[in-house]
Amino acid sequence: MLYIGIDLGGTNIAAGIVDENGKILRQGSVPTLAERPIEEIVDDMAKLCLHLIEEEGLSMDQIESVGLGCPGTVDNANGVIAYANNLKMENTPMRKLLEAYFPGKRINLENDANAAAYGEYIVNGGGAKSFVFITLGTGVGGGIIIDGKLYRGFNGAGAELGHMTLISGGEPCTCGKPGCWEAYASVTALIRQTKAAMAAHPESSMNKWTEENGKVSGRTAFECSKAGDKAAKAVVDNYVKYVADGLVSIVNIFQPERISIGGGISKEGEYLFGPVRELVRKYDYNKYMPKTKISAATLFNDAGIIGAALSK
Amino acid sequence: MLYIGIDLGGTNIAAGIVDENGKILRQGSVPTLAERPIEEIVDDMAKLCLHLIEEEGLSMDQIESVGLGCPGTVDNANGVIAYANNLKMENTPMRKLLEAYFPGKRINLENDANAAAYGEYIVNGGGAKSFVFITLGTGVGGGIIIDGKLYRGFNGAGAELGHMTLISGGEPCTCGKPGCWEAYASVTALIRQTKAAMAAHPESSMNKWTEENGKVSGRTAFECSKAGDKAAKAVVDNYVKYVADGLVSIVNIFQPERISIGGGISKEGEYLFGPVRELVRKYDYNKYMPKTKISAATLFNDAGIIGAALSK
Repeated sequence: MLYIGIDLGGTNIAAGIVDENGKILRQGSVPTLAERPIEEIVDDMAKLCLHLIEEEGLSMDQIESVGLGCPGTVDNANGVIAYANNLKMENTPMRKLLEAYFPGKRINLENDANAAAYGEYIVNGGGAKSFVFITLGTGVGGGIIIDGKLYRGFNGAGAELGHMTLISGGEPCTCGKPGCWEAYASVTALIRQTKAAMAAHPESSMNKWTEENGKVSGRTAFECSKAGDKAAKAVVDNYVKYVADGLVSIVNIFQPERISIGGGISKEGEYLFGPVRELVRKYDYNKYMPKTKISAATLFNDAGIIGAALSK
Repeated sequence: MLYIGIDLGGTNIAAGIVDENGKILRQGSVPTLAERPIEEIVDDMAKLCLHLIEEEGLSMDQIESVGLGCPGTVDNANGVIAYANNLKMENTPMRKLLEAYFPGKRINLENDANAAAYGEYIVNGGGAKSFVFITLGTGVGGGIIIDGKLYRGFNGAGAELGHMTLISGGEPCTCGKPGCWEAYASVTALIRQTKAAMAAHPESSMNKWTEENGKVSGRTAFECSKAGDKAAKAVVDNYVKYVADGLVSIVNIFQPERISIGGGISKEGEYLFGPVRELVRKYDYNKYMPKTKISAATLFNDAGIIGAALSK
């Protein structure tokens, strides 16, 4: 059987037809235009999927289920998106809305970070008994897989790994709590840290880089550090420490068999992960048993489609 | 059937005969005398158990299994205590040592914090789908129960909840990593915070309390705060913030149905838990779904015996 996975983001709706091994047979995307009424967005989501099914030459009988990954608080038990800020959803009866387009199909609703975690697990998890997925993006998201199943907490709202405390009473976080990991290890935070260093070090090549590239990004400090800039290296070193210190918490809590790290910044590869891994090893409470394997995620945007399609 | 549970601590060996509901039928304890060779300690552990069985008028046929809760890194799969600092164990073949006294019985080895967590869960968990147990004692320990089973990580070394980061780069922790939750929320940390406030405020009644009671303890700041001392109240308020900020991490990660908090300091009851609960509610990332229930543990030392007896 085949599975439809939809990744509903603030900018784009991506969808794909996925087989049971996590292979995407066909995929496409359309703009979300998030300001619209949700019924119109759902209509575009469904039409995208129906178009993919037609393009692939499939009949609806070959589709087992339809899964949606979506930001915010997802109440799959009741078929409802409890809340999604960017998409103006509150208590939205998403299962009912989708059932109108896919009569008789099982409709599964999942938090987008959980869906991406499950996608990475299916394709790259190697059957790990415990697996944690982190995205270092605009925010810091996460997903937890234990014994092959997503761990969501008793109310479905768990795995908000970006909202662990990293510095009690520290930088404000968008969630309202000061000092979250997200407020230090997200790309948003890295840009803030980069800008502060640029202001403090007018001589740093980060200022020139920014002039040439139009704006400060998550790459600014990394690229200038690689080119030998001292202030940029200090930014990267500090960012590495923040990423590692949150990962140590995850390791000491879960001792997961694998941690996979995605999001834009994961493209920095070993320049980031080498020193991160070293710090995690140093501070891991476990000194005697086998160690968690930490690696970069590989699926990028596909993870959300695959996970939405296959998570249960 | 009945189950033997042993709680091996640095000071005392406690053991009990436990039924399948977590009721202790008979219990006793002997000093550990931790400096001795481990074989002598095991001999005393076993003799204590055999004595309890005899006192209770039982035959060995009525005993299903023997479980040991023990500090340190426990490798139950291989029947070995990988490492326990206070008890001078390293790669100790504990299952083999115990089998000599209990031939043919299943011998289960468990980390002591995990055992206590499981004991509290069996007796006070109310069948929660997810349950986290925290001890605020000399250190901060924890245990995680998911779907009725202890979560230990892929290598058995997980659930070291006291070694989450609370303040990245902060106070040194005994584990070698700076800034652990344990370095702020343990009784040891509270005593350090109390002493600092006493030095900064010679007029505080905490100084007089300490003269009268012989030494600073985890109770000093709480008792003086209740009696109206301002500096003591500041210590308690700050400690509450540290406890709550770690709990928020646990809530945002697990969204467990219940959190149960034990250890000496939990005897402060609602004077501690009232404001802790308020802060956790305030900073919980979940604003739309049902909330985690936070309460004081009730079993104290019995939890370790019960959990060691019944955990699998």
